[in-house]
Amino acid sequence: MKRKEKYIYRFGNRAVDGDESMREILGGKGAGLAEMTRLSIPVPPGFTIGTNACRHYMKQGCLPAEFDDEMAAAMDWLGRSVDRRFGDEQNPLLVSVRSGAVISMPGMMDTILNVGLTQGSLGGLAAQSGSLRFALDAYRRLLQMMGTVVLQIPKKEFDAVLDAARAREKVSTDSELSETALEDVVQLFNSAIFRYEEKILPQDPNEQLRLAIQAVFDSWGNERAEYYRRLQGIPDHLGTAVTVQAMVFGNAGWDSGTGVGFTRNPSTGSREMFGEFLANAQGEDIVAGTRTPLPIAALASKMPEVYAELASVVHRLEQHYRDAQDFEFTVEKGKLFLLQTRSAKRSGVAAVRIAVDMVDDGLISKFEAVTRIQPASIGEILSPQLDFSAGVPEVLTVGIAASPGAAVGRIVLSAEEAVRIAALPGSDPVILVSQETTAEDIHGMAVAAGLLTANGGATSHAAVVARGMGKCCITGAKGIFVDEIRGVMRVGDAVYSPGDWISLDASTGRVFAGRLPMCMPEEKNPTLDTILKWALDLKHLDVRANADTPVDARNARSWGARGIGLCRTEHMFFSTDRLPHIRAMILASNSDERRLALDKLLPMQQQDFEELFRQMSSLPVTIRLLDPPLHEFLPSLDEVKTELATVRKEGNQDAINRLLILSKRIQTLAEINPMMGHRGCRLSITYPEILEMQVRAILQAAIAVAEEGVTPNPEIMVPLIAGAEEMRWLRRKIDETATKIFEDCGVAVPYHVGAMIELPRAALCAGAIAEHISFASFGTNDLTQMTFGFSRDDSGKFLDSYVEQGILKSNPFVTIDREGVGSLIRIAIGQLRAANPAIVVGICGEHGGDPASIEFFSSLGVDYVSCSPARIPVAQLAVAQTAAIPIFDKESATQQLSEHFVG
Amino acid sequence: MKRKEKYIYRFGNRAVDGDESMREILGGKGAGLAEMTRLSIPVPPGFTIGTNACRHYMKQGCLPAEFDDEMAAAMDWLGRSVDRRFGDEQNPLLVSVRSGAVISMPGMMDTILNVGLTQGSLGGLAAQSGSLRFALDAYRRLLQMMGTVVLQIPKKEFDAVLDAARAREKVSTDSELSETALEDVVQLFNSAIFRYEEKILPQDPNEQLRLAIQAVFDSWGNERAEYYRRLQGIPDHLGTAVTVQAMVFGNAGWDSGTGVGFTRNPSTGSREMFGEFLANAQGEDIVAGTRTPLPIAALASKMPEVYAELASVVHRLEQHYRDAQDFEFTVEKGKLFLLQTRSAKRSGVAAVRIAVDMVDDGLISKFEAVTRIQPASIGEILSPQLDFSAGVPEVLTVGIAASPGAAVGRIVLSAEEAVRIAALPGSDPVILVSQETTAEDIHGMAVAAGLLTANGGATSHAAVVARGMGKCCITGAKGIFVDEIRGVMRVGDAVYSPGDWISLDASTGRVFAGRLPMCMPEEKNPTLDTILKWALDLKHLDVRANADTPVDARNARSWGARGIGLCRTEHMFFSTDRLPHIRAMILASNSDERRLALDKLLPMQQQDFEELFRQMSSLPVTIRLLDPPLHEFLPSLDEVKTELATVRKEGNQDAINRLLILSKRIQTLAEINPMMGHRGCRLSITYPEILEMQVRAILQAAIAVAEEGVTPNPEIMVPLIAGAEEMRWLRRKIDETATKIFEDCGVAVPYHVGAMIELPRAALCAGAIAEHISFASFGTNDLTQMTFGFSRDDSGKFLDSYVEQGILKSNPFVTIDREGVGSLIRIAIGQLRAANPAIVVGICGEHGGDPASIEFFSSLGVDYVSCSPARIPVAQLAVAQTAAIPIFDKESATQQLSEHFVG
Repeated sequence: MKRKEKYIYRFGNRAVDGDESMREILGGKGAGLAEMTRLSIPVPPGFTIGTNACRHYMKQGCLPAEFDDEMAAAMDWLGRSVDRRFGDEQNPLLVSVRSGAVISMPGMMDTILNVGLTQGSLGGLAAQSGSLRFALDAYRRLLQMMGTVVLQIPKKEFDAVLDAARAREKVSTDSELSETALEDVVQLFNSAIFRYEEKILPQDPNEQLRLAIQAVFDSWGNERAEYYRRLQGIPDHLGTAVTVQAMVFGNAGWDSGTGVGFTRNPSTGSREMFGEFLANAQGEDIVAGTRTPLPIAALASKMPEVYAELASVVHRLEQHYRDAQDFEFTVEKGKLFLLQTRSAKRSGVAAVRIAVDMVDDGLISKFEAVTRIQPASIGEILSPQLDFSAGVPEVLTVGIAASPGAAVGRIVLSAEEAVRIAALPGSDPVILVSQETTAEDIHGMAVAAGLLTANGGATSHAAVVARGMGKCCITGAKGIFVDEIRGVMRVGDAVYSPGDWISLDASTGRVFAGRLPMCMPEEKNPTLDTILKWALDLKHLDVRANADTPVDARNARSWGARGIGLCRTEHMFFSTDRLPHIRAMILASNSDERRLALDKLLPMQQQDFEELFRQMSSLPVTIRLLDPPLHEFLPSLDEVKTELATVRKEGNQDAINRLLILSKRIQTLAEINPMMGHRGCRLSITYPEILEMQVRAILQAAIAVAEEGVTPNPEIMVPLIAGAEEMRWLRRKIDETATKIFEDCGVAVPYHVGAMIELPRAALCAGAIAEHISFASFGTNDLTQMTFGFSRDDSGKFLDSYVEQGILKSNPFVTIDREGVGSLIRIAIGQLRAANPAIVVGICGEHGGDPASIEFFSSLGVDYVSCSPARIPVAQLAVAQTAAIPIFDKESATQQLSEHFVG
Repeated sequence: MKRKEKYIYRFGNRAVDGDESMREILGGKGAGLAEMTRLSIPVPPGFTIGTNACRHYMKQGCLPAEFDDEMAAAMDWLGRSVDRRFGDEQNPLLVSVRSGAVISMPGMMDTILNVGLTQGSLGGLAAQSGSLRFALDAYRRLLQMMGTVVLQIPKKEFDAVLDAARAREKVSTDSELSETALEDVVQLFNSAIFRYEEKILPQDPNEQLRLAIQAVFDSWGNERAEYYRRLQGIPDHLGTAVTVQAMVFGNAGWDSGTGVGFTRNPSTGSREMFGEFLANAQGEDIVAGTRTPLPIAALASKMPEVYAELASVVHRLEQHYRDAQDFEFTVEKGKLFLLQTRSAKRSGVAAVRIAVDMVDDGLISKFEAVTRIQPASIGEILSPQLDFSAGVPEVLTVGIAASPGAAVGRIVLSAEEAVRIAALPGSDPVILVSQETTAEDIHGMAVAAGLLTANGGATSHAAVVARGMGKCCITGAKGIFVDEIRGVMRVGDAVYSPGDWISLDASTGRVFAGRLPMCMPEEKNPTLDTILKWALDLKHLDVRANADTPVDARNARSWGARGIGLCRTEHMFFSTDRLPHIRAMILASNSDERRLALDKLLPMQQQDFEELFRQMSSLPVTIRLLDPPLHEFLPSLDEVKTELATVRKEGNQDAINRLLILSKRIQTLAEINPMMGHRGCRLSITYPEILEMQVRAILQAAIAVAEEGVTPNPEIMVPLIAGAEEMRWLRRKIDETATKIFEDCGVAVPYHVGAMIELPRAALCAGAIAEHISFASFGTNDLTQMTFGFSRDDSGKFLDSYVEQGILKSNPFVTIDREGVGSLIRIAIGQLRAANPAIVVGICGEHGGDPASIEFFSSLGVDYVSCSPARIPVAQLAVAQTAAIPIFDKESATQQLSEHFVG
């Protein structure tokens, strides 16, 4: 015989059927109420209808047959618990009906209060509470909630009645309405319902209850709840629990009230009970904001006993849950009831502070503290934020939050303009706004306070460079059009000119017109340092930095980076003293001319590398050979045409010829799909002189610093490898060049050669490639581009639709795609390790700084991840969180386990 | 004890150590001579030094220690065989020393004749032959060959002496030189050698022989031989055999002579002995071309017995080898000697004729006949060729042979110009020359006789379209620059204008200036039809056509295509009556406007599909939904700017506004990497109206033709699928649309939905995708692009270097890369079949028409390949060749096996 399924779980009045471990069936709210009952914390008694009932309801369209009996028994028990009776006219039991999902979905589903109240029991309630006004107010609330939520009557019908009533009585809030006014309101509400439904609100309390429960179940499927679930990745089939609970009334007089609070300050993390209280009110009155609540501390003087009890109760909750709590409470005629407790949402700063304090208090282990910090919140702690304390102004447009932080500045529409203005003494900060950025814009990007682009996704050029610079950036703000012809930025019909102020909130992707106030991060956050120190102690794989400059390297080192995992040498070529030589190299008509131009660059590159080696001391410095297609170093054809027109007027024949050659070269080098074009190691094969110069710069730099007593650890990385033959050819070329350099210098230094695995073919042929390398680093940006066939610069246009439609769970340029790209990485690592067990395997794509991706890479057993300097603490934290059982926590682990059993 | 290794294998004079099966050690020539000895065919006796000796020599730098004794014994045997003695002054044995590789490398290595002749034995040879002049001529030849080949003295030193001698005696050929003149020549050759070597030619015959053998071994490693091997994919380590053979003298008088021949005509395949004969001459005299040889038939009257013997001998050779032979022979004083026999190189036409004739003669099976035709030669048979019978003129430049055939016409530099000129009555054919082509050029491409592009590879847009049209095309001719500003084509310093004649040989990629003659293929080739019929009977997987138009479909059907494997719907959108609607659709600002424009296209698309269904009857027609990015349908920004300038002058405000909107849309749609951009099924997801229109056109067309009695078999193929969620979404959308159409029409037709697997991710996730489809077709072009990260339009610039450096064995856009792309296909097919054993799997990329790729696809067990109509016979032949044991040949298979044992 099938065991009868249980749908209803009681709590309160010393009875309890559930506990915290049953969240999946009870939802967060129900589990909390059960647990509080177990802790003898006062809660209004009630019961939770499990998510299993909701799932039955969603599937079959009705409640289970056996449900009614269980429900009747539960309601009977509840009435006895509070000495009232559901449906009794003299001593009516009223209940609240609330949703309670397993994963919190705040405000997304519906709640109905005062269920069970009827015209017939109004008098009973008035007698019970000693106030007819109170009873009328309760009834109009029931009518209003049942009307809008259950009967789907437009909210404005009810609002209009209340507006008129307040106007008539010349009061500003509903709680000031007189008894007479409320009588009118109830009547008018009844008429409104009758107008839509051709009947009044059901007067059978059981019918009300049934409708209310079904309405809450239905609200699981409403639009905003579905949207929220999609955003948060919550599965649709889970369903919600429903909690039916005896009403307690915070609006039962001035010795009553309601409040919400936190056991610690959710913004700062300081050890103080924090929250708000409103006397003679119900929860919704706090939300409505028509009356100003008091800080919770005010309760200490107004209701000292209640305050003391509350403080004690929530302290017990925090100790029990070993985490800061967010709670709701009601005081009814001086008696305290807790309505809800849950883990408190908190700012990054608070999260860090609370975690460290709780370790100090012996409440949690260091490992637990580390795992409790959202890695993303580190960015929030370390970057400035817009200050919304005076309210959030209208949003101009929204883009992709590509690099966190905030920036406020004047609009500039070109990199040159940014450089020009930034150089003026005392100039205001500038925000560089463009359709998209290219490598040429890098100097403009460096001086801008923030970047805003209309196109591009989370790993477009602008996004990658901005993250590397730790600079705030919003990309793919599709509402924007940079009208280059008129030199303005358009958003819909609005036009913004260079010099106008604009504010970026790059943590959310929101753009605001005008100059918003900012709040800066504290100079030094010692609790963050403590957490990061603990994280570093826990690390089981290294975090390196993607760093191209000595400044980046110094920053990275100060955050504890274990070397440089990616130095993009091309970034060294864009400065004004170098670009002419690079261009001369590109315009060279033969190998000798090319060498001549490269000879001029050699000492500059060598100096760059010397500085990096000095900064990183004996830690590995992975230097990638030239990667971008050469046309990125040339001006645009339009620029050349303009210049050509000028010099033609001047009749300067030499200049004309030079520009004609340049223009022809630009046309020859132009590519339809540059991402898949003549770049990466393909340049080294067609122009081996470039490779020779770079290898020479790297190894001569290593020799030079070795003479100073530094022990350099150079790793030469070849980008865009497609197969083993290519790697063999390049390895031979590098080794030959090295041998020659060592002969020339009369001294040798050790060096490693590795491949960047960023093409699907390289991943599939990794075993054969492994024979020619001592390390391999996955370039997950390009690997994602090629595996999906998504251009990171163009895909912003449709990736949003993909995420919205649920076709992609997340942007694969932000969080690694485990199914496709991840399969390739898994295949490749398997082949690499099989072919060469000593090989060092790393990640140097943008994903190296993404916590969710780091978890996956860690499971594949990589040796290191590398990310932009600004992401290093985030990555270190994420790495620590993937540690299975940390060494220094082994002792406390036993402790924790036993705690769990006790709990 | 190690068995002594054998290096020398004798043949002739009734002794023979080797046979045909020992080609790997004897080389082609040595094996042939051994085999002819076994068949009692007269050959000058001699022996072959095996490739094992060459390998020893290459590795150790010297001949094996035991070699000398074996050599001495062999020379001793050889002397006795011909009654002469090596080094004897009175009765000297002279030998030829020739190379003989396992795989024929004609003319790449060296040969030395008359080895063993010295000053001392000149008199003996004169006495033997009865002519001092003959002896002197033989000696000067030895000096010349040893001087240039062994001693590496410049050839011109010897040529100058002969030139002077002929001038002095006022004769035109060396064979007319008098005895006295030859005495001088010998003396001057000796001086020349002394000048370089400070000694004369070694007078020890054994020393001569050793030097000659080593020189032949060394010639294996010379530059042209290495280059040839790289081109042909012959491994470097094989080494060559060397044949040392008693000299016979075709120049011993007018009853002597030498000749080369074929058992059948190598151009036409007709059954006639074909070749040339030169009396009183040695082989090199035929090559030198100073005397005109006679056709071999002339021998019948001049030396009737020799002719009869030759005819009988070569007939036996053909019967024995069961293939047409290419042979060399010498007649010495009326006695016939065969010097070489090998499988004859032949034209495509001849190959087909010979194969069919040999089946008729019962010499080979039908399966063997089919396997003997190079699939590539079909293209040669079916397309016109340049006529080089008057010699090959200077090559202007060389590009990639992208689509075979030849074309001669006048240069045009734009598609519009091509259309304009082609429309003029009586106009000459035009060749469209451009940097690269885009989808917009399609009408110009259709009217051009041939296409020539400076950029792009074997699967660039131009190449793909040209192959689809069966039109001659050369791409990636990097020597060419189309100077759009001046409206000319430049090749180096030379300038060609529109209207100049140009000739393309697209079978080799050569471009010639001027108007070359052409030879046309025969209207009907019945033997080819026979071979193709046999091939079709052998097929074990289907060949379908990539066809977009009714004409293509009819062609494909006439070649026996088993359906359409790829219909690219976008090709239907470029005609002038449709482009305006497509553009209106793209410029639509909302879904309704978009639908309005699409409604105009619907009846046109439906009509296209109706025609295709009628042509293909019940065979499957796979229709791919819209694939290219929308900006391909819009004019270029430059065009719009020009037009804008014009209408601004006119002050037409409506036109200005229209163009401003257009220009903004072009900018918005512009992509940095369109290949990885907003295209393929991504269009269907962002603009579902397009998908709905196309599905409607397909299914309404199917319903319409079904009413005519046709049984349409529509397959809807979704391009650029990246994962299962995407396919699920699209499948649902297609099915919903279909349901609606069937309801509207009151009738339903069966249809299939499938995915085009052309992204690495789709291949890696094929198992999950399989749940939503009933067929899958690999788009190997894009899959190759993404797997390698090679843009097919841009990679021409570096792919050549890759093939030249040996980094890539072949262009992966022509022959599938088995290691990388092939791995993905293998993974995907495994997953597809596991998830859905009934799934139909095909190939629709360009590789579907490449024989080497078809072999691989066949090994993976695909159900069909699809290729452009012009490639269908090639593909059918290639498919037949991969059949293991054909059904209709089972009886003859036993026969063949026993023949092999007899042979």
